[in-house]
Amino acid sequence: MIKTVLVTGAYGFLGRSVAINYSKKGFNVVGAGHAAWKNDEWRMFGMSEWREGDIAIDMLASCGVRPDVIVHCAGSGSVGYSLEFPYHDFQRTVMSTLAVLEFVRLHSPTTRIVYPSSAAVYGISKILPISEDNPLLPVSPYGMHKKFSEELCQSYAERFDVSVSIVRFFSIYGDGLKKQLLWDACKKIQQGINYFSGNGMEIRDWLHIDDAVNLIGLAAKNASNRCSIVNGASGEGVTVQEILKEVFLVFGMEIEPIFSNEVRIGDPAHYIADINSAMELGWCPKIKWREGVHNYVNWFNSLDL
Amino acid sequence: MIKTVLVTGAYGFLGRSVAINYSKKGFNVVGAGHAAWKNDEWRMFGMSEWREGDIAIDMLASCGVRPDVIVHCAGSGSVGYSLEFPYHDFQRTVMSTLAVLEFVRLHSPTTRIVYPSSAAVYGISKILPISEDNPLLPVSPYGMHKKFSEELCQSYAERFDVSVSIVRFFSIYGDGLKKQLLWDACKKIQQGINYFSGNGMEIRDWLHIDDAVNLIGLAAKNASNRCSIVNGASGEGVTVQEILKEVFLVFGMEIEPIFSNEVRIGDPAHYIADINSAMELGWCPKIKWREGVHNYVNWFNSLDL
Repeated sequence: MIKTVLVTGAYGFLGRSVAINYSKKGFNVVGAGHAAWKNDEWRMFGMSEWREGDIAIDMLASCGVRPDVIVHCAGSGSVGYSLEFPYHDFQRTVMSTLAVLEFVRLHSPTTRIVYPSSAAVYGISKILPISEDNPLLPVSPYGMHKKFSEELCQSYAERFDVSVSIVRFFSIYGDGLKKQLLWDACKKIQQGINYFSGNGMEIRDWLHIDDAVNLIGLAAKNASNRCSIVNGASGEGVTVQEILKEVFLVFGMEIEPIFSNEVRIGDPAHYIADINSAMELGWCPKIKWREGVHNYVNWFNSLDL
Repeated sequence: MIKTVLVTGAYGFLGRSVAINYSKKGFNVVGAGHAAWKNDEWRMFGMSEWREGDIAIDMLASCGVRPDVIVHCAGSGSVGYSLEFPYHDFQRTVMSTLAVLEFVRLHSPTTRIVYPSSAAVYGISKILPISEDNPLLPVSPYGMHKKFSEELCQSYAERFDVSVSIVRFFSIYGDGLKKQLLWDACKKIQQGINYFSGNGMEIRDWLHIDDAVNLIGLAAKNASNRCSIVNGASGEGVTVQEILKEVFLVFGMEIEPIFSNEVRIGDPAHYIADINSAMELGWCPKIKWREGVHNYVNWFNSLDL
């Protein structure tokens, strides 16, 4: 029998990548969320159906499917947005997660849920690399809302026997991502700009989207009422300066990035993940950051901008 | 100039007591929330206005007042309810708190907020007496939702300069409370029943409503963007058996309570508070539990049941 996966937030970068991956594995893929799709563009990402709207219990029930798996990618995706609109950020992230959990509890108790969380739950971590046992001290509403969502997942797993699996993703990137550092850098370079915020020494742990999507597949198999949590990252720290230098290099530019040295509120300085828990699931990140960045810049240059 | 206090959840036991207390101090008191008031019965509790409905941003804005103080008593009040209806419990407790915070941030930034939280945020505490620094490990959705609400208060205080003060109340009781242990006990005794759940050895820290209301007044004065948290309790542990024996005594019954020895999920065994932080505000609980229980039973017997 064909299995069904419901991907919430399937318009987003992670969601559409998850959708196409499950479709390639032979799943029936239903997408849900907000979107600005042109016509039925969602079909290109392997979805057989698209449900437009807020992720709410009634909306999920009206989809008419009792999915084998829900990958809950819907939610806010920006620290800056959460500082400007904390109420809406809460609605998008926490209320949508609660709706998914309650839908499964009430209407589809055998569904396995994968929740892609964020390294933002750790906040400013004094202990590196960051393991899943590190204290959770988020420094932005975005991180706090992700933490609330995780705690709701754990509560529903423990008290209501819902099967859940959480992956705390660090910096996911890859072809198709039209925001964040790499996108901004490519756009700036195209315009001849080499100024960047921060000081360039911020360490990030970059994970290619293909590796992220593979980890989600394994996490889904591992979902249970124990609600295991694994970091999703490469385990390798790279400074923003190194990344940008590489981007400039692939563009063939001889200039170097210059930094403003101002620090953004809610932006922790250093993130490197301990990925042993994820590797115990049989997963291993395959795409090295230099290769990923090269591919990204080539994809960017192939766009008709 | 007359100051205005808005009391959410002013139909409830704590809310109506807070309302009448502020009214006696000369405040203009506006009540809001759900209720089954007969006619304008709310006037008996010192309110000049009553706003019926869910506590939401628009609802608060439509009250047309920019209160000096909001005492946010609205929210779910039962562990059992939260286990049966976790989604609704979340809505009542967390969403109403978020609405109050966002209303103040957007429309009334000089308002001071007092949030009556619950000892349920501590969960099963290994360290007694429980101080405000004890770990927060709630064991029910009710306790988790109270914890989320506290964290939202702290976040709005820290990031958006909202003035907040949190009181973690232990077991509040007093004349007028028509639920929980004392009420159930009086009803049972009236019916000649002396069977009770639990084992009677559970320790609770009882605080009389008059003391609770006085502490809320001091907490309001202490509200700031540091969002201080104090325990609201007597600091004295009393077993359920001792309380019940006293109730039987006041009733003049010679039988003793008998216990089922079954333990309810989400009901921590022992609660005794460290109340030093509250006492540093100049507060001191005045009504001893035996006196409070005597008064309660006399009040119960004065009812036309």
